[in-house]
Amino acid sequence: MANDKKLVEAITSMDVDFAQWYTDVVKKAELCDYASVKGCMVIKPAGYALWENIQHELDRRFKESGVENVYMPMFIPEGLLQKEKDHVEGFAPEVAWVTHGGLEELQERLCVRPTSETLFCDFYAKDIHSYRDLPRVYNQWCSVVRWEKTTRPFLRSREFLWQEGHTAHATAQEAQERTEQMLNVYADFCEEVLAIPVVRGQKTDKEKFAGAKATYTIEALMHDGKALQSGTSHNFGDGFARAFGIQYAAKDNSLQYVHQTSWGLSTRIIGAIIMVHGDDNGLVLPPRIAPTQVVIVPIQQKKEGVLDKAYELKQILSGFKVKVDDSDKSPGWKFSESEMRGVPVRLEIGPKDIAAGQAVLVRRDTHEKITVSLDGIGESVARLLDEMQKDMLEKARKHLQAHTYEAKDFDTFAKIIEEKPGFVKAMWCGCQECEDKIKEMTGATSRCMPFAQEKISENCVCCKKPAVKMVYWGKAY
Amino acid sequence: MANDKKLVEAITSMDVDFAQWYTDVVKKAELCDYASVKGCMVIKPAGYALWENIQHELDRRFKESGVENVYMPMFIPEGLLQKEKDHVEGFAPEVAWVTHGGLEELQERLCVRPTSETLFCDFYAKDIHSYRDLPRVYNQWCSVVRWEKTTRPFLRSREFLWQEGHTAHATAQEAQERTEQMLNVYADFCEEVLAIPVVRGQKTDKEKFAGAKATYTIEALMHDGKALQSGTSHNFGDGFARAFGIQYAAKDNSLQYVHQTSWGLSTRIIGAIIMVHGDDNGLVLPPRIAPTQVVIVPIQQKKEGVLDKAYELKQILSGFKVKVDDSDKSPGWKFSESEMRGVPVRLEIGPKDIAAGQAVLVRRDTHEKITVSLDGIGESVARLLDEMQKDMLEKARKHLQAHTYEAKDFDTFAKIIEEKPGFVKAMWCGCQECEDKIKEMTGATSRCMPFAQEKISENCVCCKKPAVKMVYWGKAY
Repeated sequence: MANDKKLVEAITSMDVDFAQWYTDVVKKAELCDYASVKGCMVIKPAGYALWENIQHELDRRFKESGVENVYMPMFIPEGLLQKEKDHVEGFAPEVAWVTHGGLEELQERLCVRPTSETLFCDFYAKDIHSYRDLPRVYNQWCSVVRWEKTTRPFLRSREFLWQEGHTAHATAQEAQERTEQMLNVYADFCEEVLAIPVVRGQKTDKEKFAGAKATYTIEALMHDGKALQSGTSHNFGDGFARAFGIQYAAKDNSLQYVHQTSWGLSTRIIGAIIMVHGDDNGLVLPPRIAPTQVVIVPIQQKKEGVLDKAYELKQILSGFKVKVDDSDKSPGWKFSESEMRGVPVRLEIGPKDIAAGQAVLVRRDTHEKITVSLDGIGESVARLLDEMQKDMLEKARKHLQAHTYEAKDFDTFAKIIEEKPGFVKAMWCGCQECEDKIKEMTGATSRCMPFAQEKISENCVCCKKPAVKMVYWGKAY
Repeated sequence: MANDKKLVEAITSMDVDFAQWYTDVVKKAELCDYASVKGCMVIKPAGYALWENIQHELDRRFKESGVENVYMPMFIPEGLLQKEKDHVEGFAPEVAWVTHGGLEELQERLCVRPTSETLFCDFYAKDIHSYRDLPRVYNQWCSVVRWEKTTRPFLRSREFLWQEGHTAHATAQEAQERTEQMLNVYADFCEEVLAIPVVRGQKTDKEKFAGAKATYTIEALMHDGKALQSGTSHNFGDGFARAFGIQYAAKDNSLQYVHQTSWGLSTRIIGAIIMVHGDDNGLVLPPRIAPTQVVIVPIQQKKEGVLDKAYELKQILSGFKVKVDDSDKSPGWKFSESEMRGVPVRLEIGPKDIAAGQAVLVRRDTHEKITVSLDGIGESVARLLDEMQKDMLEKARKHLQAHTYEAKDFDTFAKIIEEKPGFVKAMWCGCQECEDKIKEMTGATSRCMPFAQEKISENCVCCKKPAVKMVYWGKAY
């Protein structure tokens, strides 16, 4: 029995120390590990399987919307990075530089891509000639490097995996539509697959991407009330096109600049899955993204017929992702382990169950146990997984709502930020001075100007001048 | 009509200049393009779709054999690279070095991974403790960098995409079995999916991987008679384990070193697809790997009902990867273009065909035209794709056989190498002096000691001492 408890006891309670709880889950659920390279991580099989499922779901949605995948080099010559002024200012301080190839010093330094706008622009400048070449809707799955000082698994690491889409369009309107379309792909994916509700909106100028005309974001609320920017989509207008000379001959033969977008979602989202759904027993995975949806735990597995029945059930449930835990560990250990790893449904089957023609199903999120007949067990499992997926989204939505506050004046705003972790909706005049002041005095940043605007009050929560936008504010990862 | 011919005329004939033909196909089939970074390439949608199909097929076979995917950092600290003596000697001269992160100089240089043995070993040393932790059968899909001086699209570039498997086993026997198993996965994949016959065998010590005890290879023969090493699998014995201290407690509690393997296949294989199957009209893709298997070309598409019929046929053929080319180009142009891109089957449908309840199918490899009834067109297409897949393998196999020679003495050997591009089977005494001499005098290298050994003669083709192995020799990419 000591052994059975060990896995669970090793986790810090999330209410005691959320940061430590997070680190414990990452480690005990075997999602990733630190590498010898400072700030870089090893993504282990359980973590990578999650990423593969995310890739699979997103890639399908991308392709349905006309996206084509490509691969660009991982190196950017220094001169190329410098072509767009705002962009280089934003990224140059945090890139890794390659200075030597083999035994020779390079004539021009190369940075390891922190993002690939400049590479796509360089390519589009050569490759786009006529309106017939548009739109270009390219994406790549790759790793990028940003030389961060403080790092945390999945949330902030020097190298991370992501996809980056880069498009070129004939008109400004088409670029704006694509920018919003991809933000909605991310938002729908988060809600439908990851059971993570998000706030969709636009970043303020202060928070937008280096070189973008407008940045859109999906913001999710973690269990501790902090926000996590979970995906972004940028409209560049023709700024990069002018810097890189990306022009096309229009139908009337005039030479026009293209309008561009980019959008990305990274392994950071795995951090969101952990911090939105996890509990003191470990990871809790929404069924639609779980690498294993059902773990079958045979009880008294050495008794005749038990293991055979377990394998038979695996066959019957072949429409789901099922594993039989036939290891020589005790059932209690297996329960703890599959809970730690977040497996949505545990199926217990022992000699008594077999005799009674039934099995016990246990939901990971609620710990609810239900006894079901072996006849029609496929439907029972399907129903349970569906319910769990729906309930997890609902629970996360309630958490989001319960931790979203309103403030009409600065004192209320500051008090909420200090005492109640979550989002604060408050009006804003639109000037960066107020944004800076709010951050300085409360630690909260503007998360986004949501698409769904409300009028909380007439005036800016900071300077009391007439407000132009309602903003979600909060502390963020 | 001038337009219709343009695409075709732009290609150099393979008999005139094979290297130029290759470059032309790569460019005109829009597989990849040069990037601003010297020696790096942009893999375009048509090229990347091929790689995605290769990944999908290989990954499925990997997972069926128990492989789990992970992701390791792309950087290797210099000290880590140096831990295994042979390995660092092999790779240090051709790696790219990161010396600065952000605005600061790094205390220790990092190389961009040329391959990840050292990273996996470093991880396994921390992560493997007991025999219960074995075997570890990990793989990653990533890009690697080797600072090559001369580069060619897909065949040799400074950055390329690949997968690298890295395993750790309790016994030498298990490691040897895994090494051979993965070589056979590659070989079967090449033959069954890519329709490329390969010679399976072991590399000589001179040609083996830096740090390996034994390297196994699949060697394919290109249309010009040159060999292409298409995938390799290495048995490291316990060499790396000793260098990195990867030990496990055995069942008897004794401390043992693990036995390791690694195996990789890269985007280089796309070069093999081009050079084994291509012709003077462009790329020819085996149906099982083709991103588009059938292109429907409507004839007189402006006539009522033609386009509707084309879309209807796409629906009927939804079990295949089908595209309708409804662009405003001429049919002739569309024919050339789909031939250039290697689409296996062209389906022509015009008003007369519709009236007669038929369509014309054209095979990309043989240009054979067959008229088929619209009733049961799904079966006709399925049969044609199957035949084409089989015939392409058969044709490539005949080419391989017709260009594989035997030599019993050095003069014959040298004459064949000079006059007849292909493989030469000849006996070898096992010493590197002969290997070096053969390379120096004929330009041929030892490709492999095939698993299927034959006795061509008693003595080494070079020194005439008693032979120990029959070797495939040839000029190689």
